[in-house]
Formats: sequence, C-alpha cells, structure tokens
Amino acid sequence: MWKEEDNKLVRQFEFKNFVEAFGFMTKVAILAEKMDHHPKWTNVYNQVTIELTTHDAGNTITERDRELAAAIDELLA
Amino acid sequence: MWKEEDNKLVRQFEFKNFVEAFGFMTKVAILAEKMDHHPKWTNVYNQVTIELTTHDAGNTITERDRELAAAIDELLA
Amino acid sequence: MWKEEDNKLVRQFEFKNFVEAFGFMTKVAILAEKMDHHPKWTNVYNQVTIELTTHDAGNTITERDRELAAAIDELLA
Amino acid sequence: MWKEEDNKLVRQFEFKNFVEAFGFMTKVAILAEKMDHHPKWTNVYNQVTIELTTHDAGNTITERDRELAAAIDELLA
Repeated sequence: MWKEEDNKLVRQFEFKNFVEAFGFMTKVAILAEKMDHHPKWTNVYNQVTIELTTHDAGNTITERDRELAAAIDELLA
Repeated sequence: MWKEEDNKLVRQFEFKNFVEAFGFMTKVAILAEKMDHHPKWTNVYNQVTIELTTHDAGNTITERDRELAAAIDELLA
Repeated sequence: MWKEEDNKLVRQFEFKNFVEAFGFMTKVAILAEKMDHHPKWTNVYNQVTIELTTHDAGNTITERDRELAAAIDELLA
Repeated sequence: MWKEEDNKLVRQFEFKNFVEAFGFMTKVAILAEKMDHHPKWTNVYNQVTIELTTHDAGNTITERDRELAAAIDELLA
C-alpha cells in the first residue's frame, strides 16, 4: 500500500469520519515520537496522507522509514 | 456492559496496549467536548474506566449520560 | 498572522518540538469537530500549517473559517 | 508540587477547561510511552490527577517515576 514517490514512502488512509482519522493520528504520533522519527502528514476530514523520508540520510528512504511504516500498518491490522 | 453504580454509568475497557487505549481516549475526548458532557475517567496502561453522571441533575444518570455512553459504544462497534 | 491565499485562510505555527506541536493539534482537533468545520493541515516535526476554507460555499472563506481561526488563535493567547 | 502518598508520587493539575486538560494529557501520553512508564491518571473536565509508582519495583517510587514527573513538569514550565 505504501508507494515510493520522490524518495519518500507515501500512503493514503481513509476513515469513517474525522474522529476516527484523528484517533489514528494520535496513535501514529505516539509511535513516531517513540521511534524518534516523524512523518510529514496531511489531514482533511477523514483522509490522512503520510510521507516518510529520512532527512539525516539526504532525504532518502531508509530502514527507519520502513520501520515506522510497518508500525503504522500494524495499527490497522 | 455499562453498569449502574451509585447513580453513575460505569464501564471498563481493556485494550491491547497503552497506544490503543490512548487512541480510544482521544476519540472519546472529542465526542465528549462536542456533546458538552465530560466523563470522569481513569487510565492505567491498557485499561480505561469511564464513569458518567450528570452534575447539573444532582449527580444522577440522565439522558445525556446515556447518549455519551451510546456514542462511546459506537466507537468500538 | 492568518493570510488569505487562493481563497483560503492560511497560518503556519512553530513549536518547541513534536510533542508540543501534537498537543496543539489535539486541541485544534477537538475544537474543529465541535464546530463541525475541519481544516486541511500538515505537520512536520515542530511545524503545523493550517488551511481553512468552506467547501459548502464553493471553497471560499466564510464566517465559519474566521470563527475557527479565532478559536485556534485563542489557544495560543 | 508532587506529594508522596502511599508509595506513589501524586500531583493534581487544573486547567482552564477540558480542551486544555486533554491537550496536556496528550503530551503526557506521548512522553509516557516514550519512557515506557505509564501513569495511573484520572480526569474530570479541567482537572487531571496523576499517580506514579513502579510496579516492577513492588509498587515503590523509583527513579523512573521521578524522571516522568520531571518531564511532566517541564511541559508546564
């Protein structure tokens, strides 16, 4: 589901409504801070787009991006 | 699942871990503020206990408590 | 601080770190749902960009956008 | 401000309203998960009570409680 675009991992998520979308975002926020790796993400109502790249590696996709992507996917499993 | 105890609606929730519990709490918080009716609630790790009563009605259970309880249940449906 | 750009109210916010940024976002999320008016917003680490427009009014800036903008500003007062 | 009661560090916090209280709780939640040390806490409207103890140390107050307490205080500095 994650696509590689311009050296970023990108995935779009759609929820039933804003409340569900923001509940998801809160869980992602906690994981991101714990892994010390933060997404660029955008939300509009029930839609969330997450972009992952590693600034410290010259904005390329690294293992840290793949680990955060996997942890996010796990939330929805 | 909600029990009436001492003029309160009380329900305990258990989640897989803290992240799931707090994601749920965030959704409940948004609903509670929207309904202008706030719980007394306690969290320890993966457990959340919610108590609902209506202060403006002399701490009795009213329709407002039943509506918030139903909205919370809906989150888990 | 809010600028009008392409029929949207836009403002950028900067915080000390991600934790402060997401704490702010949670407060905005609660207000947005309460006002039934949701932003398009983007976060990267300590930065939050909020865009407000009213879809039901043909994506123009309306009183609803100004009210949410004022409520957000109030959070930072 | 933190008191030692029954082998727990306990502090009560009061905010302007529920939105401010829950914004604070979200920041504490992120820190708690990051430190892998979770509070027992209770919220009613604008009030938050946090209790810290270390289960793995026989429910006594340890350095982990003091570190989380300090990180929480830092949020309010």
